[in-house]
Amino acid sequence: MKLSSIGIKEKKKVEVIGLELPIFKGNEKINLSELIAQYPIKDGDVIVIAETLVSKLEGGVVDRDKIIPSQKAIELAKKTGKDPKVVQVILDEAKEIVKVGKNFIITETKHGFVCANSGVDESNVYGGIKVLPRDPDKSAEKIRKEIEKLTGKKIGVIISDSVGRPFRKGAVGIAIGVSGIIALWDRKGEKDLFGRDLKTTEVAIADELASMANVVMGEADEGIPVVIIRGSRVPFGQGNGKDLIRPKEEDVFR
Amino acid sequence: MKLSSIGIKEKKKVEVIGLELPIFKGNEKINLSELIAQYPIKDGDVIVIAETLVSKLEGGVVDRDKIIPSQKAIELAKKTGKDPKVVQVILDEAKEIVKVGKNFIITETKHGFVCANSGVDESNVYGGIKVLPRDPDKSAEKIRKEIEKLTGKKIGVIISDSVGRPFRKGAVGIAIGVSGIIALWDRKGEKDLFGRDLKTTEVAIADELASMANVVMGEADEGIPVVIIRGSRVPFGQGNGKDLIRPKEEDVFR
Repeated sequence: MKLSSIGIKEKKKVEVIGLELPIFKGNEKINLSELIAQYPIKDGDVIVIAETLVSKLEGGVVDRDKIIPSQKAIELAKKTGKDPKVVQVILDEAKEIVKVGKNFIITETKHGFVCANSGVDESNVYGGIKVLPRDPDKSAEKIRKEIEKLTGKKIGVIISDSVGRPFRKGAVGIAIGVSGIIALWDRKGEKDLFGRDLKTTEVAIADELASMANVVMGEADEGIPVVIIRGSRVPFGQGNGKDLIRPKEEDVFR
Repeated sequence: MKLSSIGIKEKKKVEVIGLELPIFKGNEKINLSELIAQYPIKDGDVIVIAETLVSKLEGGVVDRDKIIPSQKAIELAKKTGKDPKVVQVILDEAKEIVKVGKNFIITETKHGFVCANSGVDESNVYGGIKVLPRDPDKSAEKIRKEIEKLTGKKIGVIISDSVGRPFRKGAVGIAIGVSGIIALWDRKGEKDLFGRDLKTTEVAIADELASMANVVMGEADEGIPVVIIRGSRVPFGQGNGKDLIRPKEEDVFR
């Protein structure tokens, strides 16, 4: 659509569609891919799914009665004001404790994510403690292949989480599992409008898509745990959530 | 749209519309608000504008011939392999140097943003060195008020940048200037699906909207420097880009 002689025009339009699903308590035997495939999926759609939903349906809710806090968990619970049982699960999920403060425990999870409480969470689950999916890339791949088989369409799948960050306040959506699309978009060698090298050569496109979906989800799983991103023209390829993890030894802030 | 008896249905749809503008070299006398207001804006639209475009039209391109690198800039240029004139501008823009390495300088800018090279950039400008807008919140407010006056619609405006981050690879879009909408969405006191407190109580909604726009922009200013987000239902209010800056004394990673 050409708007005037000065040359402003619509160049690209992306749709972000939030899907409402039934509310699950956790550990139900439901095939999520079959549920999502009921929606009229199109080629090139990127489907973003809140990690809470994926984990719940993968049996990621730990029964409180089965947790016996260790001495270390009890001490850390005192120090942080947290529930010792929750702290035990945080420790079980952690590869390394990064920072501990008055009311927070920042860890590196066994997957390699640096986040608060190892991503362990009591909200949006019923009467248990929810951990992150065991292998979010594998979950994303499984769901992508199932939906592609059911619909005959070529899609991307992202499993998203919300995390806090240094330097800036508030949580944002990130991609912890990715399949079918590029996660880290390397644009080295591309040129700017005047033929110079681009300033930003590596774009965390899967994280941006996760944030995009989060705007529609609100708090992940609050009735809209699945979002379809249509028309983004993100490069398809063998991306992984792991591609977005900065190794400790390359991180000047660790 | 009710899709089946299992209960998957479309609940919310957001449109993200990328606008192509003429290419500016820098420091042109153009009224950006008049240009954007040619587009049929609707009530509730959030307009995201790449900082490069805003800065260019505010005279933010520094003439290389006028820069005389100080001794400190020359030394830092040697250490980092950067152009001494660029380093001088980085230092001029910085409140504090946060980290220096083989090919990077991370600073806190005078605005308070922690980012590479004080946000100073030679790409997408013609023959000069571009700095961040002087006061992105003020720029956002000015543009919002002008567009609202021209169109009679109530809107939000975000001025966005792309930045790298600790722990994770790749750059993502963030909001450096905000007007008309909430930037940091405090959801304390809200409940989850089962009546428990929400895990994430502060959402950096303006950063998520900036990342959302970035998916459509690609590299900011690469022909799509303005993005309209329609239907997001983000709370309107007196938000600022400054609301998203975590003060140094509250940041456990500084």
